[in-house]
Amino acid sequence: MPGSTPMIYRHLGKTGLKVSVLSFGTWLTFNSKTPEDTSYKFMVSAFKRGINFFDCAEVYSRGEAETLVGRAVNRGIAEGVWHRSDLVLSTKIFFGTRPGPNNIGLSRKHIIEGTRESLARMQQDYVDLLFCHRPDVATPLEETVRAMSFCVDQGLAFYWGTSEWSAEQIAEAQCLADRLNLHPPVVEQPEYNLLKRQKVELDYLARYESRPGLGLTVWSPLASGVLTNKYAGGHIPEGSRLAAPENAYLRERYITSPEAVENLAKVERLATLAKELGISCSQLALAWVIANPRVSTLITGATSEEQLNENLSALDNLKLLTPEVMAKIDEIFANKPQYPQSEAKVIAMRR
Amino acid sequence: MPGSTPMIYRHLGKTGLKVSVLSFGTWLTFNSKTPEDTSYKFMVSAFKRGINFFDCAEVYSRGEAETLVGRAVNRGIAEGVWHRSDLVLSTKIFFGTRPGPNNIGLSRKHIIEGTRESLARMQQDYVDLLFCHRPDVATPLEETVRAMSFCVDQGLAFYWGTSEWSAEQIAEAQCLADRLNLHPPVVEQPEYNLLKRQKVELDYLARYESRPGLGLTVWSPLASGVLTNKYAGGHIPEGSRLAAPENAYLRERYITSPEAVENLAKVERLATLAKELGISCSQLALAWVIANPRVSTLITGATSEEQLNENLSALDNLKLLTPEVMAKIDEIFANKPQYPQSEAKVIAMRR
Amino acid sequence: MPGSTPMIYRHLGKTGLKVSVLSFGTWLTFNSKTPEDTSYKFMVSAFKRGINFFDCAEVYSRGEAETLVGRAVNRGIAEGVWHRSDLVLSTKIFFGTRPGPNNIGLSRKHIIEGTRESLARMQQDYVDLLFCHRPDVATPLEETVRAMSFCVDQGLAFYWGTSEWSAEQIAEAQCLADRLNLHPPVVEQPEYNLLKRQKVELDYLARYESRPGLGLTVWSPLASGVLTNKYAGGHIPEGSRLAAPENAYLRERYITSPEAVENLAKVERLATLAKELGISCSQLALAWVIANPRVSTLITGATSEEQLNENLSALDNLKLLTPEVMAKIDEIFANKPQYPQSEAKVIAMRR
Amino acid sequence: MPGSTPMIYRHLGKTGLKVSVLSFGTWLTFNSKTPEDTSYKFMVSAFKRGINFFDCAEVYSRGEAETLVGRAVNRGIAEGVWHRSDLVLSTKIFFGTRPGPNNIGLSRKHIIEGTRESLARMQQDYVDLLFCHRPDVATPLEETVRAMSFCVDQGLAFYWGTSEWSAEQIAEAQCLADRLNLHPPVVEQPEYNLLKRQKVELDYLARYESRPGLGLTVWSPLASGVLTNKYAGGHIPEGSRLAAPENAYLRERYITSPEAVENLAKVERLATLAKELGISCSQLALAWVIANPRVSTLITGATSEEQLNENLSALDNLKLLTPEVMAKIDEIFANKPQYPQSEAKVIAMRR
Repeated sequence: MPGSTPMIYRHLGKTGLKVSVLSFGTWLTFNSKTPEDTSYKFMVSAFKRGINFFDCAEVYSRGEAETLVGRAVNRGIAEGVWHRSDLVLSTKIFFGTRPGPNNIGLSRKHIIEGTRESLARMQQDYVDLLFCHRPDVATPLEETVRAMSFCVDQGLAFYWGTSEWSAEQIAEAQCLADRLNLHPPVVEQPEYNLLKRQKVELDYLARYESRPGLGLTVWSPLASGVLTNKYAGGHIPEGSRLAAPENAYLRERYITSPEAVENLAKVERLATLAKELGISCSQLALAWVIANPRVSTLITGATSEEQLNENLSALDNLKLLTPEVMAKIDEIFANKPQYPQSEAKVIAMRR
Repeated sequence: MPGSTPMIYRHLGKTGLKVSVLSFGTWLTFNSKTPEDTSYKFMVSAFKRGINFFDCAEVYSRGEAETLVGRAVNRGIAEGVWHRSDLVLSTKIFFGTRPGPNNIGLSRKHIIEGTRESLARMQQDYVDLLFCHRPDVATPLEETVRAMSFCVDQGLAFYWGTSEWSAEQIAEAQCLADRLNLHPPVVEQPEYNLLKRQKVELDYLARYESRPGLGLTVWSPLASGVLTNKYAGGHIPEGSRLAAPENAYLRERYITSPEAVENLAKVERLATLAKELGISCSQLALAWVIANPRVSTLITGATSEEQLNENLSALDNLKLLTPEVMAKIDEIFANKPQYPQSEAKVIAMRR
Repeated sequence: MPGSTPMIYRHLGKTGLKVSVLSFGTWLTFNSKTPEDTSYKFMVSAFKRGINFFDCAEVYSRGEAETLVGRAVNRGIAEGVWHRSDLVLSTKIFFGTRPGPNNIGLSRKHIIEGTRESLARMQQDYVDLLFCHRPDVATPLEETVRAMSFCVDQGLAFYWGTSEWSAEQIAEAQCLADRLNLHPPVVEQPEYNLLKRQKVELDYLARYESRPGLGLTVWSPLASGVLTNKYAGGHIPEGSRLAAPENAYLRERYITSPEAVENLAKVERLATLAKELGISCSQLALAWVIANPRVSTLITGATSEEQLNENLSALDNLKLLTPEVMAKIDEIFANKPQYPQSEAKVIAMRR
Repeated sequence: MPGSTPMIYRHLGKTGLKVSVLSFGTWLTFNSKTPEDTSYKFMVSAFKRGINFFDCAEVYSRGEAETLVGRAVNRGIAEGVWHRSDLVLSTKIFFGTRPGPNNIGLSRKHIIEGTRESLARMQQDYVDLLFCHRPDVATPLEETVRAMSFCVDQGLAFYWGTSEWSAEQIAEAQCLADRLNLHPPVVEQPEYNLLKRQKVELDYLARYESRPGLGLTVWSPLASGVLTNKYAGGHIPEGSRLAAPENAYLRERYITSPEAVENLAKVERLATLAKELGISCSQLALAWVIANPRVSTLITGATSEEQLNENLSALDNLKLLTPEVMAKIDEIFANKPQYPQSEAKVIAMRR
């Protein structure tokens, strides 16, 4: 039964904080249609299975997700289910919840105002992790680093990080923080799955070894569902996420582009491998993500107890990922990030 | 009569703060079985004898000690026995009071949450001294120094320090604080007694002379009772601390190991010397600790008025510790920390 | 006639230094078989056509190129052709000229010893530009930045830069230099041509805007000859560079790989366009490179007066590169670097 | 035949410099009685076997060793045996070469004057590594760090390090250098052998992981000959080093003290193990030192071709050190450094 394997806790990068290797994301799952009681029960259920990290963002359902998380947290405290210190909460600032030129981006104004609004919605004094939800090339990095560090100094967050930033942007932010004696970013939230490996497995290598280090709270383990194999042959089931009219760009990316067609074929091979291992294609894809020790935690959504179980099965299935199985997966996808030949040559010369 | 000698107050290292050279520890003495009234009366009694420093930790009886100290402090204020400013209070963060991956250690999260929880239990706005109860090699030192300094900046503590840290760890923390313009640690709480002299008498020498200096709030003056001579000949009295089943490791350390057997013989010689001086073996061991001027304060536990008197007798007995007696003690224990010969030679060359 | 158009001089990034937009590279052209007189005459010829930057590296013909450049420079001074200040000279350190574990890489030892040996071969007191010829992941970046800055402080070079470094590496080096008050790198020497646009047109964008800025001394404008269209149809002429047995990896890269086959077809379309414009395919590819104002200078080799003329023709042909022609070229190669759609969307939001 | 195994080169800590894992020490081997020709031939012989690091100190034969090394280096350059860049040279400052209050220690005066005098004796512009030969508690660490860093900035050395410093002293020096933007120490030269493991295997652990890192150039692999087993049974052969009247303190340390007697018995067991492996006791002790990957290089003396061969045999014998043999050695000596039980417990709690 899923969850028979005890939860694994990993340090978030080089920090002293520990997060459960599977965590709970509220994107797409907590919204205006979610009854308050339902969201509470999901969080309790996840917590009882060992999940301690709950991920949120100001933009998720335009603040609704934060409201639901905050109410659930406080109810759990009131009902003696958990203490605040048992939980690791995050939010992410960038997209805002309202239109207006200053309700978006990483200006000092939006970072501080946005964070305070998030905390107000959550009815919390602080989050554990505060993320810049995207890079903002329209704001000087120094302004952003100063504002994020200010939030930590004000006690609004314990650590700060980035989401979907490049290695260059994180490197510069860490170095700037060092120069200015500010709190550096220590965690990045990238997309990571069998179809998207470059950043996590190659680009960030120097960041992991940097003085402040870099933890990873990764998302999209199933690549918008492609890795479930449910789109096999390019068929889009009715009611699935990719069937939605507003997701034309995802259909192009995952189903119809030449690269997508190739990928769907690879996923079919993955499904065969999964079958041999006696698990589902999704289960294999999930376990593969947490098999990478650079991944501090894998954020998964769940809208039912079954999905939660499916996600937790990754813990059970880790043991199936022998070196041989990992090699087979690399062979199927043929996308393991490598240094270009000329760079690899120079690196070898200096060993 | 003990206590006829007036209390001595010493600066805590290079700080402007003064602590009574004998102080009151709540470890093992304040717990869930201690009536609230009893703990109050002990503290009042100690205070009236000149003791101003009361030592505590989050982990002592899982928060119970803090609760008792805090209530006593507030009752004493209410009853006009003391003002808050008459007292020096401490607590120590590391081990937490509950299970859970983030309820232990020196992460920013546990330091800040733990300190706030401690203060809540104590119903105090601040402690005078906030200690890191152990080093945490799983957390970057910079994270810990920043979080401790944050607590000082937030007014949660006036000074911060360490307990059972190595000279290297304290040196690096002090230097980091200097580089980052943060509050450095200024006090260490080490074990110090006639059987354990290395850290206090040799390892920390450079720390005492460092810019922030290093005060000492030492504990275990009687080495878990060994220096009372009550385990003479390796006999463990029923009901004594070393008789408890869970203390097998202490029995090995203090009674049965080859080194322990040697030490017990030395203690018997100490007892003879004490007798010649007209005091008990414990009294001699206690006085010896505060004879070291590096010791800012000696933390002692007391569960009876008699013990409190015994502890206070150290003040009276200081005058017995003539150079000849001190030399005799050094001769008995033959463990005075010395630089290795080669280092000593080099140091002599530079005099 | 080529060269009738006057030379253009551009600032090297944000520095005050100006370099001719076409410059003279000694890689593959100055070697042990080059008569000293020939190399001198080439340099004089180039100089008379307005070229002021002569690029070199310790590894080019294992020091021979430096020797030839240095002799030519000094002869030109002696013969009154130029003053030293009329010239911008460079060398690059990394690969060394001899075997041995410390004769390679970016350790402090090799940077300083290598630079001194280069200057000795050149019989010069300094170069204008000193490059790290590759990144060295086996040496801490701080060691490299300190050593390069030391060379500037010692007067061995006026500016320093990098070659084939990633945006992240340059960002960190610039930021480190800022933190340590050292000279930052201000120029990068990347490969840049119609087949390789990512770094120059996308990756380095933030570097151009950084405080120290980033000049570019680009190389390989014809992609090892592919952009001359001489390999049309995958045919490799005898005696051409790609025909050499040791260049199997280049043949794979430029002729036989699936991507190469696609590229050769694109080049044929480019050749057609060039014909319409009345110039050769190479001439079009060369002009296209300097049409990018981020390019401070384009390094070209020349082993005959004809080649020098061909290179200089780029100045004449710049005017042919109308927006329409540039768009046509982009359409042919379909490789204009773009932000991924999701990033582009976020950037647009912040305009 | 020894030396059939190719030399291994290791990075010196985290630096970009590489040193041969076996290196050549001039202590006790180069002195006023060594003919200049002999010392040259030894160095050539060592170099031809792959040794690139030659260790020296101002105090070795009061400057004579430096004079001999320097002459040999320059003769080797003149005779085309090596280039300067092929060699890694060191010297160490502390003890001086003449009496006088300022000809000793780590004052700014002696560091700078002493280094210049060393270089004058060596007729070299610089050494690769400049060591503080001992700690100097009579000089503020900041003065020493500033003076050593000055020497690097002046080009008198490429890197600086320490010898026989404590972890605390190195930590503080590295942190001070960080705060003051100076060159940190990156290498320590400690005694390391089967009888002395504490510093290298436990005390320095945090230093290896520090930002500047810590390389090790270890000495005394045979513990003044004890590990050759030639003093078996406490018998001191005539003419051996321990027989010299001035070495009474070494006799006490290695032959007659209770601890020494125990150690000699252990060495006899080591000799038995060596015999089983088909090598000598010394050979086993030497190979054991370089089996520790923290050891950048092992400095050995040699006064004959035979000794040089014996030393080089360590490379051949590395393969004999299987996990089983290493475990057996640990069992014989029973001195593998361990955290005290209480510390180990706390560390385990935070995993």
